[in-house]
Amino acid sequence: MLLASGIIKGSFMKGYVGKLTRQARESSYKLARLSSAQKNKALKFMAAALLKNRDFILRENKKDLAAGRRKNLKESLIDRLALNEARLKQMSVSLGEVARLPEVVGKVISSSLRPNGIKIKKIRVPIGVVLVIFEARPNVVSDCAGLLFKTSNVGILRGGSASFYSNLAIQKVLNGALSAAGINFKAFFVVEKTSHKIAQELLRASENIDLVIPRGGEALIKKVVEVSNIPVIKHYKGVCHIFVDKTADIKKALKIAVNAKVQRPSVCNAVETILIHKDIAKKFLPLLKKEFDTNKVAIRADAKTAGIISGVKKAFESDWSTEYLDLVVSIKVVKDVDEAIRHINCYGSHHTESIITRNKKNAEHFLKEIDSACCFVNISTRFSDGYQFGLGAEIGISTDKLHARGPMGLEELTTYKWIATGNGQIRE
Amino acid sequence: MLLASGIIKGSFMKGYVGKLTRQARESSYKLARLSSAQKNKALKFMAAALLKNRDFILRENKKDLAAGRRKNLKESLIDRLALNEARLKQMSVSLGEVARLPEVVGKVISSSLRPNGIKIKKIRVPIGVVLVIFEARPNVVSDCAGLLFKTSNVGILRGGSASFYSNLAIQKVLNGALSAAGINFKAFFVVEKTSHKIAQELLRASENIDLVIPRGGEALIKKVVEVSNIPVIKHYKGVCHIFVDKTADIKKALKIAVNAKVQRPSVCNAVETILIHKDIAKKFLPLLKKEFDTNKVAIRADAKTAGIISGVKKAFESDWSTEYLDLVVSIKVVKDVDEAIRHINCYGSHHTESIITRNKKNAEHFLKEIDSACCFVNISTRFSDGYQFGLGAEIGISTDKLHARGPMGLEELTTYKWIATGNGQIRE
Repeated sequence: MLLASGIIKGSFMKGYVGKLTRQARESSYKLARLSSAQKNKALKFMAAALLKNRDFILRENKKDLAAGRRKNLKESLIDRLALNEARLKQMSVSLGEVARLPEVVGKVISSSLRPNGIKIKKIRVPIGVVLVIFEARPNVVSDCAGLLFKTSNVGILRGGSASFYSNLAIQKVLNGALSAAGINFKAFFVVEKTSHKIAQELLRASENIDLVIPRGGEALIKKVVEVSNIPVIKHYKGVCHIFVDKTADIKKALKIAVNAKVQRPSVCNAVETILIHKDIAKKFLPLLKKEFDTNKVAIRADAKTAGIISGVKKAFESDWSTEYLDLVVSIKVVKDVDEAIRHINCYGSHHTESIITRNKKNAEHFLKEIDSACCFVNISTRFSDGYQFGLGAEIGISTDKLHARGPMGLEELTTYKWIATGNGQIRE
Repeated sequence: MLLASGIIKGSFMKGYVGKLTRQARESSYKLARLSSAQKNKALKFMAAALLKNRDFILRENKKDLAAGRRKNLKESLIDRLALNEARLKQMSVSLGEVARLPEVVGKVISSSLRPNGIKIKKIRVPIGVVLVIFEARPNVVSDCAGLLFKTSNVGILRGGSASFYSNLAIQKVLNGALSAAGINFKAFFVVEKTSHKIAQELLRASENIDLVIPRGGEALIKKVVEVSNIPVIKHYKGVCHIFVDKTADIKKALKIAVNAKVQRPSVCNAVETILIHKDIAKKFLPLLKKEFDTNKVAIRADAKTAGIISGVKKAFESDWSTEYLDLVVSIKVVKDVDEAIRHINCYGSHHTESIITRNKKNAEHFLKEIDSACCFVNISTRFSDGYQFGLGAEIGISTDKLHARGPMGLEELTTYKWIATGNGQIRE
C-alpha cells in the first residue's frame, strides 16, 4: 500500500481531503502508465455506458430536479441541471470524439544534441491532478472526465450541491465503464462532500493538486483565485469587440455584427461592444440599427452614436466593461483605429476582438497592438472556439496569459519535462 | 496623456503602486512596438553604460555596504550585496550576450488554414508587465532588466532594502543608456519604496501586472504565493537525486556523484540525496565514502547505509526533503528502481534527478515515471541549466508545472496570441 507507507506526498493532510488528494496523486502515477490504446478503449466504453445506463442517470437527475424545485431554484438553473435523452446522447458523442483525437502525451516538442554529447528532449507529459470546480451543469462531469482522462490527468471534480445526485450517478457509470475496460483504479473523483469548507481545503491542497480550473461565472473564479494556493487557469468573462473601420465592407460588417451578437448571445465569444470609425458612422449606424431592431437587440449608445440614431439608451462608463450575455450591445463612435485599440485594451477582457476593414495596414496594426487572446480580421468573434480552431476539443477559453491563452484543447492540458541522456558527462 | 484620460486599466488603484503599475502598462504597449534592431542596440548601450559608469555604481554600492555593516548583516549577505569591477564586468557581458540572442517575439508557433477559408496563426508575444521580487543581489536588476527588455516585457523590480542604493544606481545608468539609444520611455522600474506594505500592494495589482517571479529562498516564495492574486512562477528548492542502479558503471557513478555534490554545492541543481541499489551498495558505498571524505562532504545515512560504512550521521525523515546547499549529502539504500522512483516523487522537489545505469529498460522506466522538470540518464544533475540546455539565457529554473517547467529562457518569458483573418466569414 503506497498510502500506508507514507510514500505519497502530503501525508500531513488529514481527513477527507487529505485522503482524496493522496488517492488522486497515486492514481495519476498509474494513469500515466496507460497506453493510448487502453485509454481510447476506455473512453469508448464510457461513451457507451452513458447510453446504456440512461435510466439510472435520469432517475438520479430527477432527484436533483425535485430538490431544486423544492428550493425554488430559478427556471434557467433548473434547465441547466436537467438531463434528458438528447443531452445524454451529446455527452456520449463527445466522449467518442475525444477517443478519436490523436494522442498528445509523449509528443516530442523539441530535441537537440549538445556539443558535449548530451541528448536533450522536451516531451509532453500530463499535468497530474487537476481540480475542476463547476456550478450546476452535470455534463461537466463527463466532459471534463473525458478530456482529463485522454490527457492522462486525474480529475477531481467538485460540482455544486444542486447537481449532487446527477454528478455521482455519472461518476458511478463512467468508473464502471473504466473497470469494464480493464482499468482497476479510479481515474477521476467526484467530490462527495459539497460543503464550502471542503472546497476551501481542496483549494489549499497544493501538495497533491497541480492545477485548478474553475468553470463558472466571474464571481466563482474570483473566489477561487483568492483562496487557492494552487495555480488557477481563469476563464473570465468575454467582453468582445468589433471595430468597424472607415474602409469596412458595409455588407460584411453588418453580417458579422449581427452574427456575433445574435447567433448565440449567451456565450463568451459573443460581441458586447461595437466601435465604429467616425467617418463611416453616419452611413453604417442606421443600417446596423435596423438589423438590430429586426433581431430585437437593445442598444446602449455613447453620445455620438445617440446623435446619429434615435431610440437608444445611453451607455454608462460601466457598460464598456459589461458582459451582457444577452440581446444587448453597447456602441461607441471612435476617431480612428488607435482609439479603438486603446478602448479595447482598457475596457475589454482580453478575450476576442475583430476589426472589419479593407485597409491592410490598419488590420496589421490592430493585430499587433490588441492585447487579447484572439485577434481577428473580417470575421465574427464567434470563431473564438477550440473546435473552430481545429483543436478537436475544448475545456474552455483562457483569459489568462500564462500556460494557456484563448481556446484550451488537449495540448493545453499537458505540461512537459526535459529528458537528457549521456554517457558519464560531468560539468567542468 | 493616456493616464489622465482613464484609458489605462486599474484607474481605481490609488497612490504610488497605482501610478507605477499604470505607467508600466503604458510602457509595455510602447515597448511592444520596438523592432529587434532597436532593442538590441539599446541592450548594447546598456552593457557599455555599466562599465562607463562603474565609479558611480560602486560609490552607491558602498553606501549599501556601509549600511549593511552598521546593521551587522552576516558576512555572506554582505558578500552578496557587494559589487566590484569583476561583477560589473560580468553583468555587462551578460547584457551583451542577451543582445546577440535571436528574437523570440513575433515567432509563429503554428498556423493553419481552416476549411471555411479562415487563416489562423499562433504567435509569440510579450507577457506584458512582470514583477520580479528579489533579495540582496543587485546584479538581478541588470540581469532581469535585460532579459525582460529583450522579450519586450516591462519589468517592475522590487529588491530588498539592503541593496537600495545599488539598485537605484543601476536603474539610473541603464535607463540613461536606453535614452541614449533613442528610447524615450522607461522600459523597467525599480520600486523605490521598499516597505512591506508597498510589496503587498504590488502583489495584488493584477490589473496591470501579468506575472510575478520571486527570486529568492523558499520562505520568500511561499509568502509571495500567499499574498499574490497574480500568477506566480515558482523556483522552489532543488532537492535533486542521483539513483545508482545495480548495473551502474561504478567509475562514472563516482565521478558524477562527486561532481553533482561538490562542484558548486550552493546551487539548486546540486545533488542532495543519493539512492543506491541494494545489490551494488556494498561495493559502491565504501568507494563513495572515500571520495566524499577527500572532498569534505558530510554524510547523513539511512540504517542500511550506516551498516556498510562507518563514521556517518544518521539521517532523519526530514533529511529526505532537505536542500542542504552545502557539502552535506543524504544517502539511502533502496530495493530497486521502483523504490527509488517512489522516494523521489514523494520527498523530492520535482527539480532534477539522474539515474546511473547500464540497463536501458530501467533508464526508460525512470524517465517515464519520475515527476520532475528534468530527468537525466548517466549525467550530473548540474546540467539542469538554461545555458547547458542551449537556451542562451536563463531567468531561473521553474519547479512549477504550469507555463514553464525547468530552465526558463527567453521563450518562457513570452505568451502567445491567436490571429485569424478571413473575408467576412460568420458562424452558421
